[in-house]
Amino acid sequence: MSEGVREKPLASRTLYTGRILNLRVDEVELPSGRSAIREVVEHAPAVGILPVLEDGSILLVRQFRYAVGEMMLEIPAGLLEGDEPPEDAARRELQEEIGYYPGRLRKISAIYNSPGFCTELMHLYLATELRPSKLQEDEDEFISVVRVKPEEIPLLLTSGELRDAKTLAALSWWRAIGTGQATWD
Amino acid sequence: MSEGVREKPLASRTLYTGRILNLRVDEVELPSGRSAIREVVEHAPAVGILPVLEDGSILLVRQFRYAVGEMMLEIPAGLLEGDEPPEDAARRELQEEIGYYPGRLRKISAIYNSPGFCTELMHLYLATELRPSKLQEDEDEFISVVRVKPEEIPLLLTSGELRDAKTLAALSWWRAIGTGQATWD
Repeated sequence: MSEGVREKPLASRTLYTGRILNLRVDEVELPSGRSAIREVVEHAPAVGILPVLEDGSILLVRQFRYAVGEMMLEIPAGLLEGDEPPEDAARRELQEEIGYYPGRLRKISAIYNSPGFCTELMHLYLATELRPSKLQEDEDEFISVVRVKPEEIPLLLTSGELRDAKTLAALSWWRAIGTGQATWD
Repeated sequence: MSEGVREKPLASRTLYTGRILNLRVDEVELPSGRSAIREVVEHAPAVGILPVLEDGSILLVRQFRYAVGEMMLEIPAGLLEGDEPPEDAARRELQEEIGYYPGRLRKISAIYNSPGFCTELMHLYLATELRPSKLQEDEDEFISVVRVKPEEIPLLLTSGELRDAKTLAALSWWRAIGTGQATWD
């Protein structure tokens, strides 16, 4: 990458330090030499997991998302706890949110959900060889599990039920690399 | 949707009002009756556009993203200005960022990039019948346009160059519904 297009931090001010995010406002020097303000939401790294059953069905979670005021259908996901390795977080979240342990966990990517203002990096996994194993959910999560057959995905897309970016990103990957089972068309 | 799973706002405090985002911290009542804190980033609605040329190539933009400290390869995107209709914003952003006017603009979805904490809704479009038409870019944007053939997409995925969630979401949609041209496999 050419150094010339980077933006250099000149000053940084943390305005809020919270539970799942911090807010920072930086002054930066643009490639043109002018300066600009960058509002940055600092957010812990996270994992998102696409769990695929033997028949090619996937397991999604439905939950109320307060920020957008809607019930959302998403892949299981969650924040890393402390310095927990992403693979461990993926195994933990799967057991908490859908009640399965992944016999096989394949890292497919690490994506940014909102690179325009947010630091959050999300490690994405495909989980297969699932076997039942339940861990207690977080106290303030109220989640239901939804089993979706591959042939149902196009309708969930066009009906607007599937509108979470990380979930669509995971489906994009699944479509591209497959898992040996049927995928969606 | 069952009302019983919603979270009810009890109190709300705006901590920051900024240029592209505001920060709000709310106290909510959970379905269990307990209360919890929800940190909410308020962010204006946005548009993201997947521009497809006649030969099936797509046009992406590469730019430095300060929040993540990396050069990112993304679909053209941007915020609605004032009460600008999303379709107008899509046509404007395409002309500013890649220098094309879309003869045909097809709304494919409206997605949430970070529904866990951010209100941002992104309207997604497929743009075809592109003809050259350039509008001046925003002063603080330094963008280069990258033309990608459909058969190059799998390599851009596996190499880690394509790691922006909205871009992967748009590709997922393109794969599902097509544009009459070749897509990617």
